[in-house]
Amino acid sequence: MILTVTLNTALDITYGVRSLRPHTSHRVTEVTERPGGKGLNVARVLAALGHEVTVTGYTGGATGRAVQDQLMCTPGVVDALVPVTGSTRRTIAVVDTTTGDTTQLNEPGPEITPAEWAAFQEAYEVLLRSASAVALCGSLPPGVPVGAYAGLVRTARAAAVPVLLDTSGEPLRRGVAARPDIVKPNADELAELTGSHDPLQATRDARRRGAHTVVASLGPEGLLAANADGRWRATPPRRVHGNPTGAGDSAVAGLLSGLVEHLSWPDRLARAVALSAATVLAPTAGEFDHAAYETLLDQITVTGDATAA
Amino acid sequence: MILTVTLNTALDITYGVRSLRPHTSHRVTEVTERPGGKGLNVARVLAALGHEVTVTGYTGGATGRAVQDQLMCTPGVVDALVPVTGSTRRTIAVVDTTTGDTTQLNEPGPEITPAEWAAFQEAYEVLLRSASAVALCGSLPPGVPVGAYAGLVRTARAAAVPVLLDTSGEPLRRGVAARPDIVKPNADELAELTGSHDPLQATRDARRRGAHTVVASLGPEGLLAANADGRWRATPPRRVHGNPTGAGDSAVAGLLSGLVEHLSWPDRLARAVALSAATVLAPTAGEFDHAAYETLLDQITVTGDATAA
Repeated sequence: MILTVTLNTALDITYGVRSLRPHTSHRVTEVTERPGGKGLNVARVLAALGHEVTVTGYTGGATGRAVQDQLMCTPGVVDALVPVTGSTRRTIAVVDTTTGDTTQLNEPGPEITPAEWAAFQEAYEVLLRSASAVALCGSLPPGVPVGAYAGLVRTARAAAVPVLLDTSGEPLRRGVAARPDIVKPNADELAELTGSHDPLQATRDARRRGAHTVVASLGPEGLLAANADGRWRATPPRRVHGNPTGAGDSAVAGLLSGLVEHLSWPDRLARAVALSAATVLAPTAGEFDHAAYETLLDQITVTGDATAA
Repeated sequence: MILTVTLNTALDITYGVRSLRPHTSHRVTEVTERPGGKGLNVARVLAALGHEVTVTGYTGGATGRAVQDQLMCTPGVVDALVPVTGSTRRTIAVVDTTTGDTTQLNEPGPEITPAEWAAFQEAYEVLLRSASAVALCGSLPPGVPVGAYAGLVRTARAAAVPVLLDTSGEPLRRGVAARPDIVKPNADELAELTGSHDPLQATRDARRRGAHTVVASLGPEGLLAANADGRWRATPPRRVHGNPTGAGDSAVAGLLSGLVEHLSWPDRLARAVALSAATVLAPTAGEFDHAAYETLLDQITVTGDATAA
């Protein structure tokens, strides 16, 4: 199975309101809820592609139970979340039903104790034994050490399980130094890591910092990837319009599924870009449009040269 | 025991954010949660005054479980909520931590089926048998007939249980016609019911419509009450500053506790105004400051004349 780690799981709540006006009262006309946090989004897409996925990370309180209830209803996803005393966070997206503009409110997540962090690391080591690949995704909840991902990368490498890291800021900086197989920063995260706004130069720099393969997501312009074997650019056939929420997580699912299926790098990147664009096109945030994915897959342009990196 | 009915129970969530700016992302710095809906607030205050209280209404989904978990930790309050398939609503108060301004987001509440409405009415009839008074509080969730409170008032009267109604709009209009013992509208609700913005005239009109006693809450100016025995005005010693959330619910608790303790109307009104002001003064929304309550109780001015109404 593929393992995804979401230390800061969430219940993603979307509210439809007519128009958000600060310091007034609003009637919410539509409410939707789904399990969130990057690793859970990645897992959902992997399961939809036919892969067996196990999700781990933390769950706590009534919100954690709501997340787990919904995971139970997601075929192909196995729940291996570790219980904590604190409460799983909620994120609230307030969507203006007239303009589509979104206002985001993100709770900080539960305070994790040292004992809970130790319990997670034990559970993670056991889960790695049956994993063909692992993705470490998203922010860290309060209390988890900033070097957490670096440790989890080292544990995966010691267990010979390919590891992808998708986070930002200091946890990314430290995690990269532990030499993960893949990092997937977006343009902003890559610039923050390297200090360079030139994606080509920043990608080279991120590799020097320790990542074996850097896959930079450049939004509507697709992906830029570089490793010891070469450098590639994968672009969608046209600019797609829609909700970009979850597009990066779908790209991660594309890369991971391609990895365990032993696809070539150009094929992995084509799949990741097609899934990403099909996610932007789907009416529901974070879902992907299966028909659009199949169509787009043949239309992705991948250019590159082996050994050029 | 005193029974409070909250058909549209809620989990009241308060978020502290630095400054709410539409169409941007916000980190929530503080999260608090408590059971909400007017009847649950009334019950909490009654329990704090030493009364045995039973709460009924609906509970559903993960949010309903969170409400019930917290009720279990409230001494003196017995949970007799009726389970439904839909999910209990959340209300979110986004409080600007710099200015204290509040932006409110209210979910609509679960869709109640005819069978669930019938089940509630049965449970209510059974609970009335051991009730010394009942309060019917707040809005109706979708699916509950607009004449619901009128029916519940008639059932209470048939069981000889004094009934207080605190709602608004059409449910209030219909409920008043069923001749409740007490209605407690605020100035806006009273004006909407009667078409008159003169509280004295509107109170008379509300009595003509069927209410035995009308207690109008006039915000910082206290309460105006009228029934067949007289007319009274109860005012706090000074204008108090703070958060008015829950002040009306505390007034209802004051009226109900005074009723079951057979206090005179002036004493009931003094208690209701003192509780209301002590709620505005409390640092946490919806709680009341016990010391302030004791002090204020002797400082409320009640003027009025018997048989003048």
